[in-house]
Amino acid sequence: MASKSVNLAVIGAGVVGSSFLKQVGGVKSNISYNLILLATSDNFLISKDYKPLSLATWESDLTSSKDSPLQLEGILEYLKKSPSPVIFVDNTSNQTIAEFYPQLVQNGISIATPNKKGFSSDLSLWDNIFQEGPNTGLVYHEATVGAGLPIIGPLRDMVQTGDKIVKIEGIFSGSLSFILNKFSTISGNDSKFSDIVKIAKSLGYLEPDPRDDLNGLDVARKVTILARIAGFKVESPSSFPVRSLIPKPLESVASGKEYLEKLPSYDHEMDDLKKEAAAENKVLRFVGKVDFPNNTVSVAIEKYDFSHPFASLQGSDNVISIQTERYPQPVIIQGAGAGSEVTAAGVLADVFRIAERV
Amino acid sequence: MASKSVNLAVIGAGVVGSSFLKQVGGVKSNISYNLILLATSDNFLISKDYKPLSLATWESDLTSSKDSPLQLEGILEYLKKSPSPVIFVDNTSNQTIAEFYPQLVQNGISIATPNKKGFSSDLSLWDNIFQEGPNTGLVYHEATVGAGLPIIGPLRDMVQTGDKIVKIEGIFSGSLSFILNKFSTISGNDSKFSDIVKIAKSLGYLEPDPRDDLNGLDVARKVTILARIAGFKVESPSSFPVRSLIPKPLESVASGKEYLEKLPSYDHEMDDLKKEAAAENKVLRFVGKVDFPNNTVSVAIEKYDFSHPFASLQGSDNVISIQTERYPQPVIIQGAGAGSEVTAAGVLADVFRIAERV
Repeated sequence: MASKSVNLAVIGAGVVGSSFLKQVGGVKSNISYNLILLATSDNFLISKDYKPLSLATWESDLTSSKDSPLQLEGILEYLKKSPSPVIFVDNTSNQTIAEFYPQLVQNGISIATPNKKGFSSDLSLWDNIFQEGPNTGLVYHEATVGAGLPIIGPLRDMVQTGDKIVKIEGIFSGSLSFILNKFSTISGNDSKFSDIVKIAKSLGYLEPDPRDDLNGLDVARKVTILARIAGFKVESPSSFPVRSLIPKPLESVASGKEYLEKLPSYDHEMDDLKKEAAAENKVLRFVGKVDFPNNTVSVAIEKYDFSHPFASLQGSDNVISIQTERYPQPVIIQGAGAGSEVTAAGVLADVFRIAERV
Repeated sequence: MASKSVNLAVIGAGVVGSSFLKQVGGVKSNISYNLILLATSDNFLISKDYKPLSLATWESDLTSSKDSPLQLEGILEYLKKSPSPVIFVDNTSNQTIAEFYPQLVQNGISIATPNKKGFSSDLSLWDNIFQEGPNTGLVYHEATVGAGLPIIGPLRDMVQTGDKIVKIEGIFSGSLSFILNKFSTISGNDSKFSDIVKIAKSLGYLEPDPRDDLNGLDVARKVTILARIAGFKVESPSSFPVRSLIPKPLESVASGKEYLEKLPSYDHEMDDLKKEAAAENKVLRFVGKVDFPNNTVSVAIEKYDFSHPFASLQGSDNVISIQTERYPQPVIIQGAGAGSEVTAAGVLADVFRIAERV
């Protein structure tokens, strides 16, 4: 194919954003990927003449930049004048930016992002993002579920080729995967839930306030995305039952520190569940579910037979099981569902897909 | 996006070809997919004015067709004059057609196919198919390995985003998956290899002559494809060790019938392997492997711990384990790797990808 150029506007340069820029710098392709804008909450770097910024020195260039930051509207005006097709790469988890996607797309700007907010908030935002017009941009978000694992693409393929989704079931949180895999094992153990939460915290698997993981909301957002792709009109991540792993009385305590201190006095709750499961030769897993026959979407603690693939899950892996009319025995996809490198790779693969199409 | 038309030239109308045409007929898209040519070994149907043929009555139209068949060169001349971009859909397993891919691609015709021959024969054919020129067609072949399972696309994504493949390991034959899963189980059993081969035959899992499955060559072709995508320059499927499940003396017997009759007298060979594995708490599986650290490609009977995902494989599922620098703990993808519906869906998803790009 004739070689072409695509311009990248990258928002966010945290762990994922930095990995992404590093990976873009190493791409060998007949398409050239040019960075023309890089913005973080603190710094702003822009190529006024749309000539490529350096992918080697972006870090120092960004910190030393004197460019006056633009708001989203200003960024859009700038991108609209780009001589080459533009991909807006949102490597943040920012709600305001996500709510701006429709304006970008309506103006022909494409989007590649691991930011779940745009796809797991109110259904109206989803509809506006995917409303196709004569000249709308493309939107890819593989890394919003399972990071770089092939989940969203294959699920869309199934739907678009005419298969009917029956049931989607999976473990979509690396931190909760780690905690439950350690807490409830096939071989059995006496480990306390609170101790394992502390281990996960010490290994950096948890948010500063662990309750931000244990409330199940992140999983609810991912399930919302999968359900919508499968054709389930989910209004919002709070429109279906979501099991929280936080004991009721600890939801209101002031700090994550206080939560961790008081957690041991509630260990019996999870212990009882574990014993109950073990008695049935089952383990506990924290799963998101989309169930068409029962017309339900849920996030819950479920019990799985020792022989079930979810029972033998390792470390902090994610796993998804997709049962369809064509796959009565489910398709299973499993692997690391978090981490800056694999998340960035998921975003970059989407950037390639967009670049091949624009 | 503005709606557009893509013309499809479909070769083969067997079980996969028929499912494919049925699925195309049901597609809802802003791109219109028009059938302009349909050829089988016996019949030929062509739209001389490039107006869409009927996807509803193709079967009777084909059998009643008076169109004089064209050879590949004639088909190419016809497709070159198509007013819309053309996708050549090869739903055969024909070697001659596969060897014609380079001419099609060099003339701007894109290809979507489950036919392994083009990608698993001599390396020179692979190189010619993927030799990119100013105006070459696109080539997608997801369904050549694992039918509709997402394997080739995700593997290419890993490589293109800069990940390094360390090891690929998998069970790539539905029939051999079924036979080994039944023969060597975690719970253990006394079943004879020959009896299970006969069950597989009676269930229609095997070729008319079962040796065409049991010689391992089909697996060798799939491993060749995966190895090449991963960056391993495999000369041909016969350029690395391939374990055959056919006892030496039975390789030369006249018929599949005679093979089945004489197979029981060789059951002890597989029995010994099974006992040996069981003694180590392992099961036998027939796997293809690409191992970069050891610089080897192979097809062999391997032993796997009861806890390994391959050990708990069900029915005739395929499974692939991909270990990379970014995924030290492998990505695992598992599900039905054969069947006309899922194979056709794999081809159709590729057709979509091509149509979005041309």
